[in-house]
Formats: sequence, structure tokens, C-alpha cells
Amino acid sequence: MYVKGVGMTKFGFENRATWDMAYEASLEALEGSNLSVNDIDAAVISTVDTLVSDERQRHYPSLVSSLFKRRIPMIQIPAVCGGGGAAFWAANKLGYDNVLVLGVDKIAVNTSPVITNEIMNATDKVWEQNEGMIFPCSVALVAQQHMLKYGTTTDDLDLVAFKNHENAFLNEKTPFYRKKITLEQIKKSPVIASPFRLYDCTLNVNGAAAAVLSREKSDVEVAGSSLHVDHLGPFEREDMTTLTACGIAAKEAYKKAGISAEDIDVMEVHDAFTILELLSYEDMGFCKKGEGTKLIRNGTTKINGKLPVNPSGGLKARGHPISATGMAQIYEIVRQLRGECGDRQVSKHKYGLTQNIGGPGGSVIVNIFKKMGG
Amino acid sequence: MYVKGVGMTKFGFENRATWDMAYEASLEALEGSNLSVNDIDAAVISTVDTLVSDERQRHYPSLVSSLFKRRIPMIQIPAVCGGGGAAFWAANKLGYDNVLVLGVDKIAVNTSPVITNEIMNATDKVWEQNEGMIFPCSVALVAQQHMLKYGTTTDDLDLVAFKNHENAFLNEKTPFYRKKITLEQIKKSPVIASPFRLYDCTLNVNGAAAAVLSREKSDVEVAGSSLHVDHLGPFEREDMTTLTACGIAAKEAYKKAGISAEDIDVMEVHDAFTILELLSYEDMGFCKKGEGTKLIRNGTTKINGKLPVNPSGGLKARGHPISATGMAQIYEIVRQLRGECGDRQVSKHKYGLTQNIGGPGGSVIVNIFKKMGG
Repeated sequence: MYVKGVGMTKFGFENRATWDMAYEASLEALEGSNLSVNDIDAAVISTVDTLVSDERQRHYPSLVSSLFKRRIPMIQIPAVCGGGGAAFWAANKLGYDNVLVLGVDKIAVNTSPVITNEIMNATDKVWEQNEGMIFPCSVALVAQQHMLKYGTTTDDLDLVAFKNHENAFLNEKTPFYRKKITLEQIKKSPVIASPFRLYDCTLNVNGAAAAVLSREKSDVEVAGSSLHVDHLGPFEREDMTTLTACGIAAKEAYKKAGISAEDIDVMEVHDAFTILELLSYEDMGFCKKGEGTKLIRNGTTKINGKLPVNPSGGLKARGHPISATGMAQIYEIVRQLRGECGDRQVSKHKYGLTQNIGGPGGSVIVNIFKKMGG
Repeated sequence: MYVKGVGMTKFGFENRATWDMAYEASLEALEGSNLSVNDIDAAVISTVDTLVSDERQRHYPSLVSSLFKRRIPMIQIPAVCGGGGAAFWAANKLGYDNVLVLGVDKIAVNTSPVITNEIMNATDKVWEQNEGMIFPCSVALVAQQHMLKYGTTTDDLDLVAFKNHENAFLNEKTPFYRKKITLEQIKKSPVIASPFRLYDCTLNVNGAAAAVLSREKSDVEVAGSSLHVDHLGPFEREDMTTLTACGIAAKEAYKKAGISAEDIDVMEVHDAFTILELLSYEDMGFCKKGEGTKLIRNGTTKINGKLPVNPSGGLKARGHPISATGMAQIYEIVRQLRGECGDRQVSKHKYGLTQNIGGPGGSVIVNIFKKMGG
């Protein structure tokens, strides 16, 4: 399949109805495709059903049908934070000609206890969350293990946050557009769950992102798409510092695309917590296990480095509206491959990769995109 | 694709963990398939994330991975009351060799206000539900329209309830097994939303049902599977008494199977409210529009009639554990086609049909099954 068009709202704290954000992102994707909504023959939607919103709607495909006045096959695929990626993966496999893929969520509302409680439902509930080890604590243990085994330091984690905030400074879709975050600020921010400080953690925002996938050739091909699922909690993995499903998905995606990690020019990875960006370097084969720190220390993954990672700012600094995130990654990579990213445009852009994670590693989706004729 | 095995828990009010029910139904489906869980190469799961349960889990595929110690592609497809059907439809299209399809939900717990509120999220929220027109009221208006236009009476609706309770009397998986419900009881039950009385409405139960789909030939083929989506509310349809998406899905399924309505020997339809069974007769082409009453009056759809409908007892009397329902319909039809249904076995069973509805007509899934070599 080919990506014809992509669309994305600004990510932020504005209190907009989800249907309004869904409409904006979908229309931009349709316009970029030169297709009318009447050309779409199926839709795959990801949302965690606008869980803290007044207009909460569990039957989102039907809402999209009302919105666009279209009666076609549509399904909803949530996968907590990996929902957008999972929807895109399925849309590639369903066998339709022109598929709209949409990720949308609204979680930045003034109800932190509700959000904390909902996010608890995205990982092991019985053994961890109900005992008080909520999401940041669970991933903090992974970071502690990585520090213990491989000598990773909080300075390394700070560099991930700093790089991604530098990138977000150049991205007009993020809340951090033209807002400088200094390394000093990052280092002095309050502790959330040691070793994580505030700036190690992603940002809850509202937003939507969409794409139109088509059988008909366009300039961006989906060269490989893979989804793999692992057990619920990090404690169930053989090694807590290894995202097992990520390794499997990446290998499969490279194989489908007929390339290897070295061919990737730019990527967006799921840095919901800074440590996850380092694990992603390692588990997708960009360095040896435990050596992710090298790539952040020597600048390889900066926007002007050999392998720019999270040029959009990532979940860290672009923000993370749950199901919209996977599609926002695709939005960024497609626009990077097309050379449309202005100040944050990377120099080499033939192959791009997106990696989206649901839970603390439970669902991992890796997509590889190829710029045609480039 | 072929159905190799099916599994189903008893439906009822027992307070079991969803993982426990999911495990039981899946194991039965695997055993019936003569496959080990290690032969499964993908899974599609439907659940509305055990919404009122302590062990609420939004990342169900990952829970299933923990349960079966399998790391394979898995996705979750909720479609409110049509979730099981939607998951089955997608599993047919994903291109894997052996796919586990599972529907599971737990809603029969002592929290009616929570359930009412959650079910509100399955149809239009803004124009109808928030204004007090909750689900039964919305569908009651459809029934009133049908009465006004076609002379349907409450006696007709009572006959649907009575027939399905008669069938459930013979089904050891239902809460109404060996429990007689008389026509008198039905007629004297309390009014819920006129014209619906208690016995016009489905029953909230807990349960799980599963199937193993395979490329490899078995005795039951999925001859046609179709999913279509319509707008959220009945008021958005041109005619409130017509399930538009159902008509489209049925036509497409017949076409794929190379048959017409007359070829169907037995079916399970989505009688969440009695009127929906009559609309289903009409909109799938088993009679002219408005004449569904004929089939219930003259006994055509009784278990010993020409076209037995809901031999399991249907949502009405077998109960309706949301996402498990679509898979329970498939469980019944596959067993009917195989001649395994004992006291409630229908006499002709070459072609069977299941029709599952999400919302008041928003998602409709029609599957046609063919007994091979029969």
C-alpha cells in the first residue's frame, strides 16, 4: 500500500470535541490525497473512546459515519498508547483500495485522578498497578535496571529529553513550538519516579492525526509494517530492559522492506519516557544492547546527526494524545520523506521508520516507509 | 477461511474474572480444532475492556499474551454490542493461517447505573442519550414507528420473546435452561419503555465465546462475511424502521457466498430488543418490508419451522455479554451445522447465518457459514 495524504491537528490543551479534531485531521489527509471522502472504501479508527470527555462515545466508527455521511466498512482498533500504529497496521492488511486511518484522543482535561486511573488500565492491573506501582514507576524500574546493567546515567536520559525539546522548538504542531527548554531546566525538574524527573515523561495533550492509504501508487510506499504483542508487564519479560516485541516487529519489518537498520534515514520512536528511546535504538538494531547511550552522547540521533530520531519532538515534546500518537509519527515521517519539514527537515530521507508502543512494551508496531523515485 | 473449533462459557451472573472466561472459551475452541495454542499465528479479541470490573484492562491483547504465553500479532476490535462479529470479520481478512477470535465481557455486576451510563456511550450521546433518551427508549421509538406503519402489535413482539425463551429452555449454556417462561408472564411483565416490557429486552450476563479460524479446510466454511457501518442514531436513517447497514451487509454476504436468502437454513440474529428480530427478517430479505410479523405469527421461525431463528435463545433469552454475543452466535450456528445441538437441533443445516448489531444499527456484521460435504 501507499500513503497518499496525511493530516494532523495541533497537539495541545485546547478543549475541542474529538469529532472536531477527527474531522480536521481527516480532511487534511483527504485533501493531500486528492481524494474525496466518497472515494474512501473503508476506515480504521483508533481511540480510547474519549474517556474523560462529556461526549464520550464507545461506537466511534458510527460517529465517523455520521460525520462524513458515509456508510462503509469501518472498525475501531484501540491498543492503548499504540492504538494509532495498530490501526495503521490493520488498514494495510484489510484489502481495500482507499482506506482512511484515524487516531484521535482527548485526555488533557482537568481530571488527573481519572487519567491516572485510566492509564493504570493499560498495563498489568492485578500485580502492579493495584499495588500502587503506577505506569511511571513501572517504567522507572526498567530505567534503573538499564543503569545497573549498562552504566546508563540520568545525564543520558536528560540528553534524550533535551534533543527532543530542541526538535519540538521547530515544530509548529507542538505545545513547545518556539519554547526553549534548557538542559538546566530538565536537570532541576521535580522527581516523578526515580530516576525520572518531570522532563523524562511525556505530555498529556489532545489531538488527532490521519492518513489515507491506497493501493494506487504514490510517492511514499509502506515498505514494511509489523505488529507484535508481548505479555502485560515488564516483569514478565526475560529481561526487563529488552522490548521483546519491538525486536521481533523490527526484524519482520526490515525483512518485508528488504532492508536492514543501517538503511533507515530518519525515525520517530515511542519516547513516552526517555529510557524508551534508548531501548528502541538497541532493540531495533541501531546499536548493541546496552549501547543506546553512545548514540545520544555522540549526537548521532540529533536532527543534523547521522540518524535523526524524533525530529517532531517525539512523545516527549510534541505530546502524546494516546491513540493519535502512532498516526502523528506517520504524519512526521511521510512529511520528512517528502522534504516538507522546513526548519526541522532532515538531509537524507529515502527510508523512514515509525515505532509505536502500547503499554510498557505489550504491543509494538514498526512501520517502514520508502520515498519512491528518490 | 474455515471454522475449525468453537468454544463458549455458560452465560450468566457468576462473578468470574474475564481472563478465566476467556481462557475457558479459547481452550474449548482450540481443543475442537485439534490445534495447540502454539499453532495460532494471530488473535483478534473483542471486549469493551471489562468496564465495570476490578480487573479492568484496556490492553486486552497483552493480557491474552500473558495468559497463553504467546508473542504473536494480536489486536482488539470493540464495536459495542457488535464487537464479536466485527472481530470475526477482521480475523477473516488479516491473512493469517490459524487465528483465534475471542469475545469476552463481564457486565452482570451489581452496578446498574454504571452499566446504563456505559451503554449510553454506544449510541448518539449528544442529541439523544444526554437528553434522557437512553437505549431502550431509542429502540422503543423504532418499534412504535413499525407499529404505526405496518400494524405490528405487542402480541407480535411477545411471540418473538416467547419463541426465544422456548429455545433457551433447551440450551444448557443459558440462564433460562429448563426455566419455563410463559406467554402470560411475558405479557404481564413491567413496562420498560412503551411498547417494550421487561421480556422485550435482552439480559445483561457475563460470558466469553471463541473460534479458531483456519486456512486449512474443515467441515464449516465461512462462505461470506460482511461488515457495514451506519450513522449513530436511528433518527439519522432515512427510515427509522430499516436497518440500512444490515441490508447492505446481508446482500454483500449472500453475493460472496453465491446464495440468496432462501438458501439459509438456520440463523442467529441480534434480538437485543424483540422488534430487532422482526426488522432483521425484513432487512435481510426473508420477507417484504413490514411483513416480519407474518414469519413470527405463522411459526416459520420456530425451531421446527421452515427457517429457525435464534435456536440458542438469542440475545433475548441466552443473554448478551456485549462483545461475546457475536461469537456466541457463531458458536451456535457452527454447532447447528455440525448437527451437535441435541434437543434444539434444527433439521436442515447446510447454510447458517449470523447477524450481529452494534448500537441501534450503527455496525452490522452478517456472516454466512456452509457445511461442507453435506
